Amino acid sequence: MDKYFLKLDGEGIIKYKVIEKHIKNLIDCNKIKDGEKLPSIRNLASFLKVNNVTIINTYKKLESEGYAFQKIGSGTYAKRRDINKNFRREYSNVLKKIANSGNNDYLDFTDESPNGDFFPIKSFKNVIDEVLDRDGAAALTYQEALGYDGLRESISSVFWNNKINSEDILIVSGAQQGIDVVSKAIVNTNDGIVLEKPTYSGALSVFKWRRADIFEVPMDKDGIDINIFEKILKKNNIKCFYTMSYFQNPTGVSYSIEKKRQILNLAQIYDFYIIEDDYLSELIYDKRIKYNSFKSLDLNDRVIYIKSFSKIFLPGIRIGYLVPPKKFKDSIQNSKINTDISTSSLMQRALDLYIRKGLWRNYISKLNLIYSKRYEYTKSCLKKYFKNKIKFNEPGGGLHFYFKISDSININCLRLFRIAREKNVLITPGTLFYKNPKEGQKYFRLGFSQLGDEEIEEGIRILYDIVSDTY
Amino acid sequence: MDKYFLKLDGEGIIKYKVIEKHIKNLIDCNKIKDGEKLPSIRNLASFLKVNNVTIINTYKKLESEGYAFQKIGSGTYAKRRDINKNFRREYSNVLKKIANSGNNDYLDFTDESPNGDFFPIKSFKNVIDEVLDRDGAAALTYQEALGYDGLRESISSVFWNNKINSEDILIVSGAQQGIDVVSKAIVNTNDGIVLEKPTYSGALSVFKWRRADIFEVPMDKDGIDINIFEKILKKNNIKCFYTMSYFQNPTGVSYSIEKKRQILNLAQIYDFYIIEDDYLSELIYDKRIKYNSFKSLDLNDRVIYIKSFSKIFLPGIRIGYLVPPKKFKDSIQNSKINTDISTSSLMQRALDLYIRKGLWRNYISKLNLIYSKRYEYTKSCLKKYFKNKIKFNEPGGGLHFYFKISDSININCLRLFRIAREKNVLITPGTLFYKNPKEGQKYFRLGFSQLGDEEIEEGIRILYDIVSDTY
Repeated sequence: MDKYFLKLDGEGIIKYKVIEKHIKNLIDCNKIKDGEKLPSIRNLASFLKVNNVTIINTYKKLESEGYAFQKIGSGTYAKRRDINKNFRREYSNVLKKIANSGNNDYLDFTDESPNGDFFPIKSFKNVIDEVLDRDGAAALTYQEALGYDGLRESISSVFWNNKINSEDILIVSGAQQGIDVVSKAIVNTNDGIVLEKPTYSGALSVFKWRRADIFEVPMDKDGIDINIFEKILKKNNIKCFYTMSYFQNPTGVSYSIEKKRQILNLAQIYDFYIIEDDYLSELIYDKRIKYNSFKSLDLNDRVIYIKSFSKIFLPGIRIGYLVPPKKFKDSIQNSKINTDISTSSLMQRALDLYIRKGLWRNYISKLNLIYSKRYEYTKSCLKKYFKNKIKFNEPGGGLHFYFKISDSININCLRLFRIAREKNVLITPGTLFYKNPKEGQKYFRLGFSQLGDEEIEEGIRILYDIVSDTY
Repeated sequence: MDKYFLKLDGEGIIKYKVIEKHIKNLIDCNKIKDGEKLPSIRNLASFLKVNNVTIINTYKKLESEGYAFQKIGSGTYAKRRDINKNFRREYSNVLKKIANSGNNDYLDFTDESPNGDFFPIKSFKNVIDEVLDRDGAAALTYQEALGYDGLRESISSVFWNNKINSEDILIVSGAQQGIDVVSKAIVNTNDGIVLEKPTYSGALSVFKWRRADIFEVPMDKDGIDINIFEKILKKNNIKCFYTMSYFQNPTGVSYSIEKKRQILNLAQIYDFYIIEDDYLSELIYDKRIKYNSFKSLDLNDRVIYIKSFSKIFLPGIRIGYLVPPKKFKDSIQNSKINTDISTSSLMQRALDLYIRKGLWRNYISKLNLIYSKRYEYTKSCLKKYFKNKIKFNEPGGGLHFYFKISDSININCLRLFRIAREKNVLITPGTLFYKNPKEGQKYFRLGFSQLGDEEIEEGIRILYDIVSDTY
């Protein structure tokens, strides 16, 4: 009963609201467990020295917000099941509201993409004009099933040294569509899918929607835990393994070449396919990290390679590509056609010309320079303030860090998100990255792409204050 | 046995190939039924006065192409089941090959979209430049969950007189994505879906992929047959009805206002939703046809309205929008996010400005003028040549006609497609528009948007020659 204790002698407070907020926090922090019986109305009222009606109102409110349910003749019980769903909505609503308000006072650590300020808009505009002069209406008329020839050719030559043929490349509208199109083509109800734990929430949603049977394998320092993975493979019929090979989202882990080879080998033995989401491998700051995609190491046509240009280039451009194994080429292409027929032709042509002119390469070099500095600065601030209060890997690239709050610190990421937000700091809670959100309660992600040095330091200082201010 | 008769005395002919082609045609025309036993090797060889080896080769070839199968110890049997699948591939491969060859000698009646030649590329280019000057990198960075505010506002005011709020509009990447996103949000395995018969093949594919339980209702002159529809509603739990309210693809039929009201009423009684794909209602030539979408007549929030800008504007632009009922607003929006996060921001902004400047309205008026003339000319050619050999409706708008070949004429649309193609004329066979392809065997679609008057007449003359030249 002690955990229900609360001081209710403040001036002008609305008692039932204070009690409600307190109980919600207890449920969020798992101090009241899912399904745990709440005290009877009479008991709680006398314990807190309030009227019965106050507790009745509290419980009604908790129920209407999905934090509690009634069992007739038995009492009121705590409910945790929908927290993540509710919280997902809260999270996306907060971000939406802020985006719409045009309020720039927030220190926003939630973004996963480069900052648009560095984008050479003028040269891209020239490229678009050149395409429209060159191709006329064709740039807006043509619908190529595989995507624009020219772009597929430049991907083949610039990114793959012609080791992958342009006919084996399928243009898609970003990596999210890539995952969706692949899953529709090859994943059916109850098919076994292995995901990294934690993983990208957008992928989790897609596989959930396909009603796949989802298995999670925890991340080690150089990729998933192979022993746990193999145990799952032995016991279950697994169709695909979805992986982000560099700067995994959210952990920031990159796979070692040995682990990639082990997994490719397992794919051949246990007959599954690897969906490789190569989303940020352009941003390697630590020169010890070498670039070798699963696809480039694949000897048995086991990899479905997905590359987003939106992530590294500009989110609004909505372009990416897929390299499917021969076996799935037709079905994945049909899946793309059924999904949206084709990707904006003008954007494909513009990107193609941008790559051909060498502007892409210049832009990526520039981003590398900017973000490696920002990465180092963020790291130094984290060490300066937090010391041992939170643990994090050093990804050596990418645009974010991932943290575990020490168990001894009594705050979970949902509360951290809410309090930080009141102080104009936005972070991404770990709960979004797990099939079972509870497992992410002590984690959060910090993306540093949108902020300058001073803002980064201020944000980290604020977060440190919240975490230190033991609840 | 007579039907197998064939003259084999031409010079330099490869006998087994001629026999193979002949038998394929017999199967395609249903003169050899699916599962019918083919003559024994010995019998057919002696009947055609060839070696046994020739027939062995013929049967091997038929088997390898899916036209026949062996029953061990019993013989060879004809196979029709996969014709449509194979044919779909043949059809799309033909179109692909021709598109890639850059060969412009074809008279192409397969297209469903306006001709890019009339598109005012220069003014659109100016609009894009203006957007990039105005918005800078934001035009390529921003990802709005519902779509670009400005575009949603101009859709609300220009197309709906503000009767639909901009917050109730969701931008999608064309109508195909609209159908896909809606079906993922609300259609599950074994859910009952009613389609028009015949219907758009892209919609058919999406619902098949969702493993929905598909019912078809034949089209009358003013929309589906209500009696048959109601019988289905009484016996089954129907979730959605997918309809193209104007110039239905492929029949060209438009719904009468009475029929729309009847269907809306049934939706309320039998608790189903209407997915309205409003794809070409801008092109009304017959002034007796009034524009009233299901959505505009909907009193009970029963319509999921889908509008493509790609179809009427430019296919390569890949923009459309959705207006969901309140009930499904959240789930459809989530489905869009899981599908590809958002639609190209620059294209949305450009289209918005294009509409605001009144350029859209001008362009549509121009298209109306051009295509109403072309429509009349096509109609006059069809009457001149075909007289009563084929039957067709007069849609009074849109970009195509749909035909039934008289039963007395011994040719099906697959053969018509193949022969026409050899004569450089491309048409769309009816088989693509039916759940059971056999039902479309006597139909084909002719789209007139890509051809000038002379080409239209020449193409129709060639088709007439093929049809008259009784097989």
